[in-house]
Amino acid sequence: MVKSGVRKEIDEALLGFVDRQRPGLLSIGADLAPLLAALDALLSGGKRLRPAFCYWGWRAAGGVDDGAGILDAAASLELLQASALVHDDVMDSSDTRRGQPSVHRRLEAMARDAGWPGAAAPFGEGAAVLLGDLCLSWSGEMFERSGLEPGLLALGRPVYDLMRTEVMCGQYLDLLEGVRGRGTVEAALRVVEYKSAKYTIERPLHLGAALAGAGAGVVEALRAYGLPLGIAFQLRDDVLGVFGDPAATGKPAGDDLREGKRTVLVALTLERADAAGAALLERRLGDPGLDAAGVAELREVIADSGGLAGCEAMIERYTAQAAAALAAAPIAADARGALEELAVAATARLS
Amino acid sequence: MVKSGVRKEIDEALLGFVDRQRPGLLSIGADLAPLLAALDALLSGGKRLRPAFCYWGWRAAGGVDDGAGILDAAASLELLQASALVHDDVMDSSDTRRGQPSVHRRLEAMARDAGWPGAAAPFGEGAAVLLGDLCLSWSGEMFERSGLEPGLLALGRPVYDLMRTEVMCGQYLDLLEGVRGRGTVEAALRVVEYKSAKYTIERPLHLGAALAGAGAGVVEALRAYGLPLGIAFQLRDDVLGVFGDPAATGKPAGDDLREGKRTVLVALTLERADAAGAALLERRLGDPGLDAAGVAELREVIADSGGLAGCEAMIERYTAQAAAALAAAPIAADARGALEELAVAATARLS
Repeated sequence: MVKSGVRKEIDEALLGFVDRQRPGLLSIGADLAPLLAALDALLSGGKRLRPAFCYWGWRAAGGVDDGAGILDAAASLELLQASALVHDDVMDSSDTRRGQPSVHRRLEAMARDAGWPGAAAPFGEGAAVLLGDLCLSWSGEMFERSGLEPGLLALGRPVYDLMRTEVMCGQYLDLLEGVRGRGTVEAALRVVEYKSAKYTIERPLHLGAALAGAGAGVVEALRAYGLPLGIAFQLRDDVLGVFGDPAATGKPAGDDLREGKRTVLVALTLERADAAGAALLERRLGDPGLDAAGVAELREVIADSGGLAGCEAMIERYTAQAAAALAAAPIAADARGALEELAVAATARLS
Repeated sequence: MVKSGVRKEIDEALLGFVDRQRPGLLSIGADLAPLLAALDALLSGGKRLRPAFCYWGWRAAGGVDDGAGILDAAASLELLQASALVHDDVMDSSDTRRGQPSVHRRLEAMARDAGWPGAAAPFGEGAAVLLGDLCLSWSGEMFERSGLEPGLLALGRPVYDLMRTEVMCGQYLDLLEGVRGRGTVEAALRVVEYKSAKYTIERPLHLGAALAGAGAGVVEALRAYGLPLGIAFQLRDDVLGVFGDPAATGKPAGDDLREGKRTVLVALTLERADAAGAALLERRLGDPGLDAAGVAELREVIADSGGLAGCEAMIERYTAQAAAALAAAPIAADARGALEELAVAATARLS
């Protein structure tokens, strides 16, 4: 097992919590079983990045892993992430997630297959909104019930709260950039910062360190590593969303283009492309009927314009910034090693 | 001021919390202002029933009102309710709430009026999902930061958690009954119990009492009052949803019929109506094009079949059950008086 590997322990904590919730739901009615099944399917995938960063933030700050408390607190972030994914897929009308049908499509199919008289699609969407709400509630419940000392929980709670608010605001800004149309690289970067970089890496690290009672020096060092790494992580994800292998991403090729995501990659391309290339990208971006040939055409514009190279250069720059911050951070050697590994995993070209 | 009136104090706590969140959001970006404005507009209405029941549960259990702690904990339930309303309106595609445009319609109108190139309707819906998520997070944050002693918060937390899970499960069952079509009175009552009765009255009372460190006797007595009163409350709401005055309900006349809600009133009517009446109700229920004449026709079926009388009889029975439980409850006289008043307010024919 790699040094950064706490996947098994995080999974045990996460699935253990869900299993403890199960009887309560089924006592309300056996009709709740499909909602639980949809959650089980969703949680069977995923990289558990946020719990891993939270755990290593704790360790970096000198927290001891005694097999309790911190694993539940860290794993609670995966329920927050599950909520965000389920709601995101409803908002984007995404058909797939982690290589499976998205939650709303799954529940829509259940209603359709059963031959019920009501409209299946709004049922699926409504049920997914509710499952996302349940996951959001359960994340808070799992965090509070983690078993960490009340004094330590009180240190972490402001970070946990801030993380939730920041990601929701970042998602709103993302929607806003989408409806407004063409925006600046700077505006796209603000979305990346709040929707992704802080939420995925900076705040989980910050939370773990805060829960361990870290001093300001360790917290600042971890945040100085986490924010640029988080930006690099999202920029890599954006590149994979256009150029990635569907087998690795779990999403159809070019899905980000079809969804019309206003990524930094797109903003860079629009800045650098010639008039014809920019016009083509503006015209086809967000077209749900974009086929393989259309995706190939847009890929060409993004590569030829220098948008792709610009994005790769940014990834390199932010990754180097994170590495330098980590090298200088006043933390234990094993945590440094694990965070080095996680940095590579988060920004690898093939994920 | 009536004895049960803590509206002013609850409002101060609630709006004070939102005001404390405001600078943080605006520091992320001035673009967040419309989201805050939508929340302000939503919170300007509402009866604050859940906070009031929570507060009086606390007082009934001997909790002292020293102007702190419990008001914030109680007011946090209004943010939970705001989340539920915003998400409900998205799920039901409701245009109005509390006599104003619903949040998703308000934000959709903003995008349309600005002339932005993206699609306004999905933007409004997505933004409303996110605002609901924010309210749900903030409810938990406000509860935890209420300032109540950690030991008391720990007593209340399981009830708060249960309340959230129950209402979300109840809402899912409601969607399920809707898509499945014709169901039994019993199935409709289960939805009422979880989506509404427990959530609106039983659990808020329970939570307040638990936060005050109440013994099992007081908790059981309050729950024995709260559950039947909560059922009566929802049945009254269902009657008003069909027969109510739009000026009082804040919703267009017959909106529940247009939305196709599978209420106890509808189930009772289908059980009691003749074949022609039942067929008419089944055919027109959930028809978005139902006009005033159509609403009048369905009202006639519901009244003539005895469905309405059956529902009124149930309201009377549950209200009496609640009153008897309250009369026998081992609680202080001022709390009993306030809860008597709240019972009347919650089940009045004109609300």
